[in-house]
Amino acid sequence: MSFNTFGHLFRFTTWGESHGPALGATIDGCPPGVPLDAAMIQQWLDKRRPGQNRNTTQRNEPDAVEILSGVYEGQTTGTPIQLMIRNTDQRSKDYGDILNTFRPGHADITYHQKYGLRDPRGGGRSSARETAARVAAGGVARAAIGAAAPGVQVTGYMVQMGEKKIDRDRFDWDQIAQNDFWCPDAQAAAEWQDYLTWLRKDDHNSVGAIIEVVARGVPAGIGAPIYAKLDTDLAAAMMSINAVKGVEIGEGMAAAALTGRTNADEIFMGNDGQPVYSSNHAGGILGGISTGQDVVVRFAVKPTSSILSPRQSITMDGQPTEVVTKGRHDPCVGIRAVPVGEAMMACVILDHILLDRGQTGGVRGRIG
Amino acid sequence: MSFNTFGHLFRFTTWGESHGPALGATIDGCPPGVPLDAAMIQQWLDKRRPGQNRNTTQRNEPDAVEILSGVYEGQTTGTPIQLMIRNTDQRSKDYGDILNTFRPGHADITYHQKYGLRDPRGGGRSSARETAARVAAGGVARAAIGAAAPGVQVTGYMVQMGEKKIDRDRFDWDQIAQNDFWCPDAQAAAEWQDYLTWLRKDDHNSVGAIIEVVARGVPAGIGAPIYAKLDTDLAAAMMSINAVKGVEIGEGMAAAALTGRTNADEIFMGNDGQPVYSSNHAGGILGGISTGQDVVVRFAVKPTSSILSPRQSITMDGQPTEVVTKGRHDPCVGIRAVPVGEAMMACVILDHILLDRGQTGGVRGRIG
Amino acid sequence: MSFNTFGHLFRFTTWGESHGPALGATIDGCPPGVPLDAAMIQQWLDKRRPGQNRNTTQRNEPDAVEILSGVYEGQTTGTPIQLMIRNTDQRSKDYGDILNTFRPGHADITYHQKYGLRDPRGGGRSSARETAARVAAGGVARAAIGAAAPGVQVTGYMVQMGEKKIDRDRFDWDQIAQNDFWCPDAQAAAEWQDYLTWLRKDDHNSVGAIIEVVARGVPAGIGAPIYAKLDTDLAAAMMSINAVKGVEIGEGMAAAALTGRTNADEIFMGNDGQPVYSSNHAGGILGGISTGQDVVVRFAVKPTSSILSPRQSITMDGQPTEVVTKGRHDPCVGIRAVPVGEAMMACVILDHILLDRGQTGGVRGRIG
Amino acid sequence: MSFNTFGHLFRFTTWGESHGPALGATIDGCPPGVPLDAAMIQQWLDKRRPGQNRNTTQRNEPDAVEILSGVYEGQTTGTPIQLMIRNTDQRSKDYGDILNTFRPGHADITYHQKYGLRDPRGGGRSSARETAARVAAGGVARAAIGAAAPGVQVTGYMVQMGEKKIDRDRFDWDQIAQNDFWCPDAQAAAEWQDYLTWLRKDDHNSVGAIIEVVARGVPAGIGAPIYAKLDTDLAAAMMSINAVKGVEIGEGMAAAALTGRTNADEIFMGNDGQPVYSSNHAGGILGGISTGQDVVVRFAVKPTSSILSPRQSITMDGQPTEVVTKGRHDPCVGIRAVPVGEAMMACVILDHILLDRGQTGGVRGRIG
Repeated sequence: MSFNTFGHLFRFTTWGESHGPALGATIDGCPPGVPLDAAMIQQWLDKRRPGQNRNTTQRNEPDAVEILSGVYEGQTTGTPIQLMIRNTDQRSKDYGDILNTFRPGHADITYHQKYGLRDPRGGGRSSARETAARVAAGGVARAAIGAAAPGVQVTGYMVQMGEKKIDRDRFDWDQIAQNDFWCPDAQAAAEWQDYLTWLRKDDHNSVGAIIEVVARGVPAGIGAPIYAKLDTDLAAAMMSINAVKGVEIGEGMAAAALTGRTNADEIFMGNDGQPVYSSNHAGGILGGISTGQDVVVRFAVKPTSSILSPRQSITMDGQPTEVVTKGRHDPCVGIRAVPVGEAMMACVILDHILLDRGQTGGVRGRIG
Repeated sequence: MSFNTFGHLFRFTTWGESHGPALGATIDGCPPGVPLDAAMIQQWLDKRRPGQNRNTTQRNEPDAVEILSGVYEGQTTGTPIQLMIRNTDQRSKDYGDILNTFRPGHADITYHQKYGLRDPRGGGRSSARETAARVAAGGVARAAIGAAAPGVQVTGYMVQMGEKKIDRDRFDWDQIAQNDFWCPDAQAAAEWQDYLTWLRKDDHNSVGAIIEVVARGVPAGIGAPIYAKLDTDLAAAMMSINAVKGVEIGEGMAAAALTGRTNADEIFMGNDGQPVYSSNHAGGILGGISTGQDVVVRFAVKPTSSILSPRQSITMDGQPTEVVTKGRHDPCVGIRAVPVGEAMMACVILDHILLDRGQTGGVRGRIG
Repeated sequence: MSFNTFGHLFRFTTWGESHGPALGATIDGCPPGVPLDAAMIQQWLDKRRPGQNRNTTQRNEPDAVEILSGVYEGQTTGTPIQLMIRNTDQRSKDYGDILNTFRPGHADITYHQKYGLRDPRGGGRSSARETAARVAAGGVARAAIGAAAPGVQVTGYMVQMGEKKIDRDRFDWDQIAQNDFWCPDAQAAAEWQDYLTWLRKDDHNSVGAIIEVVARGVPAGIGAPIYAKLDTDLAAAMMSINAVKGVEIGEGMAAAALTGRTNADEIFMGNDGQPVYSSNHAGGILGGISTGQDVVVRFAVKPTSSILSPRQSITMDGQPTEVVTKGRHDPCVGIRAVPVGEAMMACVILDHILLDRGQTGGVRGRIG
Repeated sequence: MSFNTFGHLFRFTTWGESHGPALGATIDGCPPGVPLDAAMIQQWLDKRRPGQNRNTTQRNEPDAVEILSGVYEGQTTGTPIQLMIRNTDQRSKDYGDILNTFRPGHADITYHQKYGLRDPRGGGRSSARETAARVAAGGVARAAIGAAAPGVQVTGYMVQMGEKKIDRDRFDWDQIAQNDFWCPDAQAAAEWQDYLTWLRKDDHNSVGAIIEVVARGVPAGIGAPIYAKLDTDLAAAMMSINAVKGVEIGEGMAAAALTGRTNADEIFMGNDGQPVYSSNHAGGILGGISTGQDVVVRFAVKPTSSILSPRQSITMDGQPTEVVTKGRHDPCVGIRAVPVGEAMMACVILDHILLDRGQTGGVRGRIG
C-alpha cells in the first residue's frame, strides 16, 4: 500500500486530476475468468455521477469508462485492467481564483507546502473526482466477488445528514434506491430534501453526513491479523475517501459507553449447524477476522468546504483574502460518497477473500 | 503493509503469542545514527505494563526489552532492530477453559474458523499482549523522531470512560501523568476511580473508553495522497489495536452534524510568517497532508470482553456453554491502550517524515 | 513489488496487451517539480521502436506517448503519472494460428495453464511490446534523475551477438549511436550486420545477444541491504525483461573462475579526496551499496523463439502440430532490449536515490 | 520486498549482526497447520554450519535455532514464526583491524559511506552469517511445501570451482551428500579437494564457484508476470546472497550464443496426458510461469575477499594500508552458499504456490 495504490493481492492504483485529460484506475491482481464488460462497471459510475439531481453538483459529465486492457472476449485474463474515464466538461474558468488562493478546508495549502507546486484546476488530484476511479475499481471487485463468493452483497446508504438521523425502525432496504440520498428511511429522505434545498438556496451553506456500508453474506474466516485486519483495512479504505473524518466498525465510537455485559455478542448454534449471535456489536469482525455476520462500517463526511458564504483565508503571497466559492458544488458531498464507500468495501472484501485462499488455502475449522 | 507488518519506510513486524516464550518487534528502516538503548524503550513499556495499579490486570510481568540487533555502541546502524520481550509470568492454568470454548467478544472462534487451529493460551496471538511489541517499536520511533524532527511531541490520554467524559475546560497537560488513567482532568479521574472500583468489585463488569492522541510540532507537508494519507495511516494504525471499534480525526464523527460555515478552519498569517488557523476541526490534516497544526486522533476501545458475569457461548463441539472469565483482566482495557495509541502515532509520524524526504527531498512551497 | 508493479518508492505498473487498444505505465512516487513533457519520453521510445531498420520487426507503430496525469505546466506534481501508448498497427491476422497452438519458447502454454484463458493476439500481455511501457517509465526516471543527481549517465549497448563478441580494445562510446546494434565496436557492428542478414534471409533463424548497461556518476552509498540491494534490484529488473535468461554484475559468472587475489579491487585515495579503485570486478557495488564506480550490469537475451523454421509443438487439444512463424519478428530481439535495459537501470537508480534519502537523509560517512 | 524483507505472501525478514547477541528470521504468511519443530529446521542449518570440515571456516558455532512464536503443539498457527539463533563463538579480537580499515571486496567502505557508522565486528550485518537466518526460513518453507505441494524437491550442488567444472556425464544425484562440496561428480570433488588444500595452505588464496539449484516436481502454472515472474524472483533471491555476481535460468548467459532453432524446447504430449518437452533450455519457466519441467537456476559466487595475501586499501582516515586477513575464513565461500541457494529456491517456490492459489484459486487450463 503505497501512495496511490490500495490493496494487498487485489491492488488498484488511481491516477488523474480533476481537469486533466482523463483519470482512471490500474487494477492488478484481479482473478482470471471473471465475466466483465464496461457496462458492468458503468452502472456503478452512473450511481456516483454528478449532475443527476438538484442535490449534487451541476457539473455534467458522462463519466464513461473504457477498459483498455486485461479483458479478452468478455472475461478477465488475470493481467492488469486499465480503466480510463475521459474528462469532458472542464470549465476551468470556474476555478481561476484557486490559482493564488488557498481555500479553507481544502488541500490547496498542504499540497503547495508539500510539493512546492500543484495542479490548481478543480483541486487537481485532491478533487473528489478521484473517487470516480475507485467506483470503477469497485465495479471490477464486485464482478470478481460474483465469481469467487457469489453470496456476498455490498450495500451503502446514508444514515445521517447534519443533525438529522434516520429512524432505524423505519429502515427499509427497498427504499435505498428510491430517493436522491440512498436513504433507507423514506420519511427522513423527504425531510433531508427540504433541509438541503433551504441550505443550498437560502443559507448558502453545506452539511456533513454519515454513511453506512454493509456487506452481507461474507464467509467467516476472512481477514488477517494483526496489521491487515479486515477492520484495519476498512478503516484505511474509508478514511482515504475525501472529506471523511471518522470511521466506525459495528458499535463504533459508542462502544466506549457500553459495559462488557451489554456489549457481548453471545454465541449459539443455528439450525444450519453454523454459529449465530445474539447481536452484532462487533460489526461482523472479531480479532480482525469475519464472523459470518454482516460486516458493518460507518463513516462521517464533513460538510463541503466550498460554500457561497465568505470565509477568511490567505493567498500564496501570504496576503489576507476572502473566499467565496461560486462553482458547482454539492451542498452535501456525503451523498456521492455512498457509492464510493460501497466500492471500497467491495475491494477490501475481495482482497481478503484472495489473501485468505492464498495463505490458508481456504482451510476452515469445523465447529460441532 | 502485509499481515503482521506495519509501515512504509519505517516498518515493524510484531511477532509472538501471549504465553509463548517471547514476543517482540522486528523493525526495518530505522535511520542510522539515532542514539538508542534499552532504557529509552523500557520507559514506554513500563507505562503500558500490566500489574501497576488496581485498575489493570494483576498479571505481573517485568516486560523487559532486549535489543538483539541493529544498535552498535549506543547508536542505530540502519540495519534491522530486533526487540525481544520474554514472557515470564504465564500461569496457563487460568486459561484452560478457553481450549474448547469460544469466549464471546474474543477472536477464539474466528481464529479457529480461519486457521483450523489456534494457540489458546491467553488468547495466543490475538491477546492484547501483542501491543507490548508495538510500544517497544514506538520507543524506537520516538528516538528517531528526536533525531529527525526534534520539535515533535506525541501525547495520549483518556477523554471518556463509559459514559463519563472529561470536561475540556479542566484540561491540564500536567495532570496526565498524575493519575492511573492518563486523564488530563483531575476531577474526572477521581470519579472514574470510584466508578471502576465499583464496576470491578460489585458489578463484575467492564467498560469502554475513548483515547485521544495528539502530535504537536509536526511540520506542515508530511502525508501522501491518496492511499497513504496521514489520516488513512492513522486510522489503520489505531483500528489495528485490539478492541478498537472507531477512529476519528479532528472533529471526527461529529463533523457530520456541522455545516460548512461552522466547520471551516479559516486561515491567517501568523506573526512568524507561517499560516495560522482559526480552529482545528480538521485535526491538523488537509487532503491527507499535515497543516502544521496539532495532529489529533481519537479512538474508541470496547469494554473488556472477559468479565466475571456469565455469558452464553458454544464449545468447539457446538455445544452450548456459559463463559465466566476468572482470570486476571482489566476492567477497562482502554487504560492500557493509551501508550499503545501513542506508539502507533509515533510510528506513523516518523514513517511519513521519512517518506516525505524520500519523495520530495523535503521540498516546501513558500508562502508569503 | 507485486505482479505488474516494479520499484520501492519510485514505482511503476505496466499494463496493456500487444493488440489491445493501448498499453502504458502508471508511475507513482515521482518527485515533484521535475521538468517533463511528452517529447522527453518520446525520444527513448523512438530508440526502441520497431520498424526502424531491416534488423527489427517490420511492424510499424509510431508508439506515441501521451501524458494523461501528474504533469502541470511542464512539471511533475508528485501525483501519479499515467503514460499511454495507443496500439495502432495491429494486423491480428498474422497471429491467427496462435489461438489454438502453443508456440515453443513462448508463454502461450504457461498462460493457458495458469489462467485457463489468454489473450492470444500478438502474445497478449507476454509480448515484448510490454517493454515499450517500461521505456516510457524510464524516460520519466531519467528526467527525475536529471533533477536529483544530475551527474548520472545511463548507457546500454550490445557486447555479443550469437557467438560474436565485441573487442573491448575497440570500445568507443561514440560508436554506440552510430549503428543499428547500439554496438560500441564499429567493426563488430559491421560483421553482425552481415551475419544477421544471412540469418534472417537464408537461414530462417534467429540469435541471442548480450547487453551491457552502465550507470556512470552514481554517488557512493545508494542501495539497501539485504533484500533491496542495488544488485538484487538490478537482477530482478533485467530478469523481468522478456527473453532474458541471465544477469551479471561486474565480473559476473566469470567471477567463479577467479581467485581472491585476482578479483580484489584494491582501494586508494584519489586526488579529489575520494576513494579510487584499482579495478571494478565488483561492478560498482559492494554489499548491495554503490561504491561510486561505474555500476555495470549485463544480461543475456535468448534468440527470438518465433522463426520461419518449423518446430514441433501441440495444440490446445493436445494434438501434435508444426509451428512456423510467418509474422513480423526480430531476428535478434536483443537489439531492442538495449533501451529497455537502460530504462530499467534508470528506474532502479532513481528508486535507490529516493530510498536512500528517505532512510538516511543522505547521511554520508566521511573518509579522510 | 523492502530492505530486509523478502517475499510476497510468504515473507521473511532477516535480522542480526555477525557478532551481536543473536540473529534470526521473522516469517510472516506461513500457512497454518504445517507440522514443524526445531529439528526440521536444524537439519538444514547443520548443512550450512561452518566448522564442519577443513574447507570451511573454523569458526565453530552450534547455530541452534529456537522457535519463539507461531508454532503450537507441533503445528504452525498461521501467525508470525520467529526463529532465533544465538551467536556463541564471537572471538571479536580476530576482527579488531576492521575497525578502522576498509577491507577490499567487503562492504566496510560502502556501509560507512551510506550510514556514517557500522558495526565492524565480523562484518556486522554484511557478514555471510546473515545467510544462516535464510537457511532457517528455508526450512520452514520446505515444511510448508511438504504440506501444500508434496512432490516438490529442491536440491543444490556445486558445478564449478574456480576454472574446474563438473563433467555432466558423471552427474550422480547420490554423490551430492557424499563429499564436502555438495558435488554431484565424485571425481571432480576429489580434484577440488586437492586444489582447495593447496590454495588455502600454500597459495594463501581463495576461489569462486558456481552453484546450481534445481526444483523438481514444481506444478505448471506458478509464477506471476511481469514483475513477479518466477525467474525474476529467483534472480533477486540469488543475487541477494553475499558474494553472488551472476544468476542464470536454464541456458543462462549461454543462451546468447544459441540460435532460435537450437534453443527451441519443442513440445509433445506425454503418456500421462501432460505436455513434455524435447529439452529444457528455458529452465522450466516460460513468460515467468513454470512449465512443469525442472526449475533450474545457477549463480556465481566470487572468491572470498578475506585472504592471507596482502591487498592495498585505505583506512577511515584515508591513509594507505595493507590488508591481510588472518581470521577464520572459507577459501571457497561458494561451498556454504549451496544450502543458502536451496533455501532461497524453497522460499520462492512456496511463495508462488501461495500467490497462485490466491490470485487464480488454482485454476488450470486443460490441454487435450
